[in-house]
Amino acid sequence: MSHVEDKLAALGLILPEPIQMPPGFAAPFQFVRVVATRAYISGHCPLNTDGTVAAPLGKLGRELSIEQGYTAARLTGLAMLSSLKRALGDLDAVVAWARVFGMVNSAPGFDKQPMVINGFSELILELYGPRIGAHARSAVGMAELPFNIPVEIEAEVEISA
Amino acid sequence: MSHVEDKLAALGLILPEPIQMPPGFAAPFQFVRVVATRAYISGHCPLNTDGTVAAPLGKLGRELSIEQGYTAARLTGLAMLSSLKRALGDLDAVVAWARVFGMVNSAPGFDKQPMVINGFSELILELYGPRIGAHARSAVGMAELPFNIPVEIEAEVEISA
Amino acid sequence: MSHVEDKLAALGLILPEPIQMPPGFAAPFQFVRVVATRAYISGHCPLNTDGTVAAPLGKLGRELSIEQGYTAARLTGLAMLSSLKRALGDLDAVVAWARVFGMVNSAPGFDKQPMVINGFSELILELYGPRIGAHARSAVGMAELPFNIPVEIEAEVEISA
Repeated sequence: MSHVEDKLAALGLILPEPIQMPPGFAAPFQFVRVVATRAYISGHCPLNTDGTVAAPLGKLGRELSIEQGYTAARLTGLAMLSSLKRALGDLDAVVAWARVFGMVNSAPGFDKQPMVINGFSELILELYGPRIGAHARSAVGMAELPFNIPVEIEAEVEISA
Repeated sequence: MSHVEDKLAALGLILPEPIQMPPGFAAPFQFVRVVATRAYISGHCPLNTDGTVAAPLGKLGRELSIEQGYTAARLTGLAMLSSLKRALGDLDAVVAWARVFGMVNSAPGFDKQPMVINGFSELILELYGPRIGAHARSAVGMAELPFNIPVEIEAEVEISA
Repeated sequence: MSHVEDKLAALGLILPEPIQMPPGFAAPFQFVRVVATRAYISGHCPLNTDGTVAAPLGKLGRELSIEQGYTAARLTGLAMLSSLKRALGDLDAVVAWARVFGMVNSAPGFDKQPMVINGFSELILELYGPRIGAHARSAVGMAELPFNIPVEIEAEVEISA
């Protein structure tokens, strides 16, 4: 078992099944695209363990509290790790987190996006430690997100050759 | 003639002229920036064949239907290919599509961004095939876009050394 | 003194202190993340020279004019250069600007995002010249940004090995 999976198990965290796209939605793209030693990671959203989109849906500052947004961002991290495991075989293949782009479905006047995306960043640092897990980040407010999800995060990581 | 241009011709698709920026807009950037074997592609929008911004303008969920948005995303793909051809000389120089960031000008409550950006993704897969054309993607809802365009897409591709 | 710092001095420009995060905001990420010869740069905002967030806050098309937005984008560039200097030691270590993603806090109907982000692009070109300073760019309208900042810009640069 890999180092990162050991930590997931120790924390009692479970990686969800692949996303079950809502009816009528095709996905003509890859959730992880590997090019040489980089993996580009598509926008992910919070999932239940069975791969369905996790509730609550809606906007921060309207349907969701900051705490609920933080949890959604953490679940988004687990969904991303699930995709990475399928694409790379081993979560320890990530040698550096590089870029994280955190998108928060934001009601007018909501400006605490960083507090929401911290749910993702803190998970990655917890699992990968400060050397591999460190990343550049933006956390910003979107007008709308697909299926009315509260959080969508895309990322880029460096992987072992 | 290149492989991709053969396919464009077979499909009856024409690459537009370079964008004619609306009056008063300077463009102090490059539409394609090549760094080593990567090409970073600026946000592109739908163009007419003469390089003018293509109608309809406005937001998905207000001025545009999903079908019109899909067409706008497909036209955005042709505009991007036109820029790539000028920058690289040959569209076959792309050895891997890597990252696609699809931005949809979204009216309140519009959450079908993936269905719109599929117009771009399906064009790229049609022209480049599943091995080269595969890409990571996000499709998200923006509050506003320049000149009130309905769709803006930026991307990153790997090119031959 | 480096070439770029010579130019900053000649222009009378001062790099601000590191950002002083508003109370209650943690920053579990790096403002510049170096991976091999790439530096990924987190979203930056306009700062005063003491590192506090620069006024005016708010949206383009409501609280800020285009001229004020242009100045905010230019200040964001100085904040980014300040982070790059701390991370790289020398601003001349940047051998190519690659990608600039300019996010403008946009009131309904504001569609002049490129005119705002030009304040950033023109600073970079002024300091680095057209060969190193050239970059791909998107300039788009966000629903909300953290702390109600008017502009946030993230970027990616290539650095010397």
